[in-house]
Amino acid sequence: MRARVFVTLKPSVFDPQGRTIADALQSLGYGGVEDVRQGKYFELELKTSEAGSARALAAEVADKLLANPVIESYRIEVD
Amino acid sequence: MRARVFVTLKPSVFDPQGRTIADALQSLGYGGVEDVRQGKYFELELKTSEAGSARALAAEVADKLLANPVIESYRIEVD
Repeated sequence: MRARVFVTLKPSVFDPQGRTIADALQSLGYGGVEDVRQGKYFELELKTSEAGSARALAAEVADKLLANPVIESYRIEVD
Repeated sequence: MRARVFVTLKPSVFDPQGRTIADALQSLGYGGVEDVRQGKYFELELKTSEAGSARALAAEVADKLLANPVIESYRIEVD
């Protein structure tokens, strides 16, 4: 079963990489893009076929290794 | 309106960063994680409030700046 983990900086944390992308888009003529936030995306292939335990495992892995809970938050999707 | 862009390496492209994460999880005792693929995640704040044009703009931006279409593919969600 596959779990997707999206890690983003918390809204209160400044995202210079996203800011740089937004500025680059402005200078390329994409004025329709107001702001960009960059994050990380992980696809985990899990042995379990039970959605609840897949979500629990993905959350534990995200807490331990994939995200820095001081400055980042994460969201998990399981299918 | 917000567009989310997920950029991942194409399946045929080796992902050493994901491999390293998978190996680290194995050595941390998470044998239930078989494989990991890492990608990038972008949240775009767009001026438009029309879903079709938001998706078109996000796709153009992904092609031009966010993804390298030679080795990466992307997926877009709009809400």
